Amino acid sequence: MRQHMKIVPVGVSARHIHLSTAHVEILFGKGAELTEMKPLSQPGQFAANETVEVIGPKGNFPKVRILGPVRKETQLEVSRTDAFSLGINPPVRESGHIAGSAGITIKGPAGELQIEEGVIVAARHIHFHTSDAERWGIADKQRLSVRLQGERGLVLENVVARVSPSYALDMHIDTDEANAAGAKTGDSAEIIGN
Amino acid sequence: MRQHMKIVPVGVSARHIHLSTAHVEILFGKGAELTEMKPLSQPGQFAANETVEVIGPKGNFPKVRILGPVRKETQLEVSRTDAFSLGINPPVRESGHIAGSAGITIKGPAGELQIEEGVIVAARHIHFHTSDAERWGIADKQRLSVRLQGERGLVLENVVARVSPSYALDMHIDTDEANAAGAKTGDSAEIIGN
Repeated sequence: MRQHMKIVPVGVSARHIHLSTAHVEILFGKGAELTEMKPLSQPGQFAANETVEVIGPKGNFPKVRILGPVRKETQLEVSRTDAFSLGINPPVRESGHIAGSAGITIKGPAGELQIEEGVIVAARHIHFHTSDAERWGIADKQRLSVRLQGERGLVLENVVARVSPSYALDMHIDTDEANAAGAKTGDSAEIIGN
Repeated sequence: MRQHMKIVPVGVSARHIHLSTAHVEILFGKGAELTEMKPLSQPGQFAANETVEVIGPKGNFPKVRILGPVRKETQLEVSRTDAFSLGINPPVRESGHIAGSAGITIKGPAGELQIEEGVIVAARHIHFHTSDAERWGIADKQRLSVRLQGERGLVLENVVARVSPSYALDMHIDTDEANAAGAKTGDSAEIIGN
């Protein structure tokens, strides 16, 4: 019945980077801080005015958006297509799980650094506020199947549920997934299996 | 039961172009012909040694592989990601259905031309030899659901069946779809709904 459909908004994540405080200072200068350009769907998160260049063995992206606030560890999230362009082979990982992931060179206006790990292809996931998860019977870390409709309609499996009282309901997919599905930010998706 | 599973090999199509005879001559010179580099999975089809440059309003690809033999009409097949890079907005279409599709500039060693239509994002499809289709009860033009397994497992819906005695069994997806699924040429897919 329609009133029981589990509908979530879709957010398409383009390549972006999270930086540690130490790395912000190397890239932008001693005492530099990220400045907010616009808020993101998750409370407290923002797209910064600042960008960095990322440089791989085969290619580079001159303007990669930084998402704030600063994090404990620097993490670059790219699509598989981006990874081919850069010439690196990052694993599919949940955010924050960077042990043994790929490395990259990062360049800012004040300096340059290399990370040995921190580059991932983000595992597709849904942020649930605790109240959404309770209402729908969904547990943190659960794997879900989610349908995106349209002429390129598809069902994404292994969509990771992430539940927290600090999250707003939103499904995050990368540009490869969005393009394969013909989907864009603001579309709706339906959780069909959990 | 396993013996009834409908398993098809996966072929990932990178951006490529089919040319008309007239366009081969404009791009490569009067009397020029495509020469075979390697055969493709479909009988009689080949990747040519020749490449062209394609130039859009926002970007260009300097070496796009030509697939032979020549066709009645020139057709450039790109992924949605490629389309963003070029700055064009081609529709998702079955091969050969180019009316009202996007245009592009094409450049070869002997000349350059513009097409007003012919650029498409190829609709994902499976080539069936007539005998495969009969065995599995699949009709030409039927829309199928197909599962690709793995950590980025997904089910592609609206996969077009194309049946002919001149086809070999093969599912063709583009690089966005392959990357979204973590799939590569030579993987296996399973038809789960028809």
